Amino acid sequence: MTSTLGGLSTDSPARELVCRGCGARFPLAAQHACFECFGPLEIGYDLDALKRVTRERIAAGPDSIWRYAPLLPVGHDPATRVTLNPGWTPLVRADALAQAIGLRAPLWVKDDSANPTHSFKDRVVSVALTAARALGFTRFACASTGNLANSVAAHSARAGVPSMVFIPADLEPGKILTTAVYGGDVVAVDGSYDDVNRLCSELTEADEFEQTAFVNVNVRPFYAEGSRTLGFEVAEQLGWRLPAQVVIPMASGELLTKIDKAFRELVETGLVAEAPWRVFGAQSAGCNPIATALHADTDQIVPVKPTGIAKSLNIGDPAAGLYALEAVRRTGGWMDYADDDEIRDAIRLLARTTGVFAETAGGVTVAVLRKLVASGHLDPDAETVVFNTGEGLKTIDAVAHLVGPTFRVRPSLRAAREAGLFRESL
Amino acid sequence: MTSTLGGLSTDSPARELVCRGCGARFPLAAQHACFECFGPLEIGYDLDALKRVTRERIAAGPDSIWRYAPLLPVGHDPATRVTLNPGWTPLVRADALAQAIGLRAPLWVKDDSANPTHSFKDRVVSVALTAARALGFTRFACASTGNLANSVAAHSARAGVPSMVFIPADLEPGKILTTAVYGGDVVAVDGSYDDVNRLCSELTEADEFEQTAFVNVNVRPFYAEGSRTLGFEVAEQLGWRLPAQVVIPMASGELLTKIDKAFRELVETGLVAEAPWRVFGAQSAGCNPIATALHADTDQIVPVKPTGIAKSLNIGDPAAGLYALEAVRRTGGWMDYADDDEIRDAIRLLARTTGVFAETAGGVTVAVLRKLVASGHLDPDAETVVFNTGEGLKTIDAVAHLVGPTFRVRPSLRAAREAGLFRESL
Repeated sequence: MTSTLGGLSTDSPARELVCRGCGARFPLAAQHACFECFGPLEIGYDLDALKRVTRERIAAGPDSIWRYAPLLPVGHDPATRVTLNPGWTPLVRADALAQAIGLRAPLWVKDDSANPTHSFKDRVVSVALTAARALGFTRFACASTGNLANSVAAHSARAGVPSMVFIPADLEPGKILTTAVYGGDVVAVDGSYDDVNRLCSELTEADEFEQTAFVNVNVRPFYAEGSRTLGFEVAEQLGWRLPAQVVIPMASGELLTKIDKAFRELVETGLVAEAPWRVFGAQSAGCNPIATALHADTDQIVPVKPTGIAKSLNIGDPAAGLYALEAVRRTGGWMDYADDDEIRDAIRLLARTTGVFAETAGGVTVAVLRKLVASGHLDPDAETVVFNTGEGLKTIDAVAHLVGPTFRVRPSLRAAREAGLFRESL
Repeated sequence: MTSTLGGLSTDSPARELVCRGCGARFPLAAQHACFECFGPLEIGYDLDALKRVTRERIAAGPDSIWRYAPLLPVGHDPATRVTLNPGWTPLVRADALAQAIGLRAPLWVKDDSANPTHSFKDRVVSVALTAARALGFTRFACASTGNLANSVAAHSARAGVPSMVFIPADLEPGKILTTAVYGGDVVAVDGSYDDVNRLCSELTEADEFEQTAFVNVNVRPFYAEGSRTLGFEVAEQLGWRLPAQVVIPMASGELLTKIDKAFRELVETGLVAEAPWRVFGAQSAGCNPIATALHADTDQIVPVKPTGIAKSLNIGDPAAGLYALEAVRRTGGWMDYADDDEIRDAIRLLARTTGVFAETAGGVTVAVLRKLVASGHLDPDAETVVFNTGEGLKTIDAVAHLVGPTFRVRPSLRAAREAGLFRESL
């Protein structure tokens, strides 16, 4: 299925697909790889159309990603949206966390666990499925490490469209169940995410899947654009300016590249004043191929077999790794990785200092933030935004053995006193 | 500790505490029971001050409960708020759910799982703790069936204030852990919620707890006011009008009475046009003392020992039961209750038709909605709002045995075909 986006609104600033490898250009369609060089494609915009977008127009929009519709390829007419209306999530000032890790400048947590299915994936899925419906697809699908599956299944339920999501069979039970409860098909694959992804790529070629949009395969260029809204939101929430430093988790690496792209676009369009920013990437020690390449000062990203508790980041062969390296090098940032104990500590540190309970991916990012301050790669005197992309309730096993009741008592004053509750009193 | 609210902003429309039993009036303070008749107290407002509040002023406020600050007793100066900024949660149009249960008029799901700790409790906790800090308390506490504990612990972490929350020891592990992760004290009590609540009432009298605000005990009048924001939001999201019918879960019964109160206030202040509304209450079969009293046409609410999976509603001796009965009778509504299997079915029905994954309390409410339509108590031709007050991820065990992967395959096209995936194709 390669029909072009006939239904694309004339309000859309999107004009074409552009190869990130060779620069070849193609019509807007359900195409994700370059016919010339097999490189990945991304959306090309009419810069003049983007430049006509004003802060006022955005501020007058809804409290969701759709306030940025004028900067997105699809969804300009609200009736065309396939969406749970994600986005416009809290930017939380984190003074106590900053103090705990030695940051002196303002630190903010962009908390995307506040999205409808509690991860940043709702952003990309809303854009991808809105494009998919405009392109004529009649079933929605994805390859997922969990959060994406949750989001595709929930979006499909809301839209009344059949779905089929593919996940590694060893995912956290919380993520399997919260996908299956929405009633679509859930395919557990005996293999890694990379195996799941390969299977989905093959299925897109099968006749029986011609009408099926795999959000992160055959409509991937649209999918990836949704992540830009995270960058737009941070800038708007800071009063239309860019933070000096951002720390972003990496799975495929795409999120990092799209937040960086959003910042560039905000400068190009004049929505924010030009100012330098530095991009930092976070991986887990169990899956660190991009960070390893950076540390080795090479473009050779060697695929790994992922291990460890940060399953939502466990992509061993990261599709956008090269572009993530480019963004980090260009902006003067850095990458690092954290092991499982550091991840668990960081989840608890974040919760205790901010009231935000992050999934393991958020633990990775805060743990790496901490390391970057300690190693001097991150400037402790420059304003920093750290991204929490998911919800602690989905990866509860990561910390279940570390926290619990601090007292257990029978329901009487005497029992409470004997248990030591009164000694704890202020 | 009975200091009056010396720090109360002159912007506050709150004037006094009024006994819901005998009408006696007291200064605004940390007092929850009438000195005359021991009846419960609630906030009394200056109606003229409320009438000066305009739709425009509210709409110009933040995307949280604090847009209604002019209608709340505390929090007028943003710097005084102890808050995760809850509220302004989605009102989801639910056509497919309406069709599934035989409703012909518009049906909406007010989805309060979108709050920061994923239940409506964030609303009441933000108001209670903002009052508590203004009243000089230095530690925050509560008796909780789970969601309230999550919220108090997270709010306290954000505010940097010590907390001590009290829960029944047999709570869902998800709710214990997501309280403990924020680092405050968690006291597991071997007993029912009613036992926990009694213990907390006794502790408020102990010298060692003089500086401790129990949000739903000694600052309860402020706490309860936060629920009104749910009623305000529904009306504003409907374009400043009241829905004809609302279906609300009942634990203490307080939420129902406060949504009803919010509707009355909106009419009295002229913020919405006068129109009749009917209030319906939902309980579980394992804890149905209020509905049982209604069905028996009596005001005698006989306490029960709660059972069943809807633990967040398991209050066997409901403090506001009498007032809930009054609201339902006055408005021509009704109450009903659902058993555990009906609750599980309703959780799945809601998820499949709306993309909203509710905790057991939401299952109770949707199951009762369904029964009320079937029994003819609810008018299928009148616009209806059903309230989901919590998040499915917290009560995952309720449906874990009912849903799961629909296919399990090895990562190859051939395995996918043999497993029947291609037959599922569209």
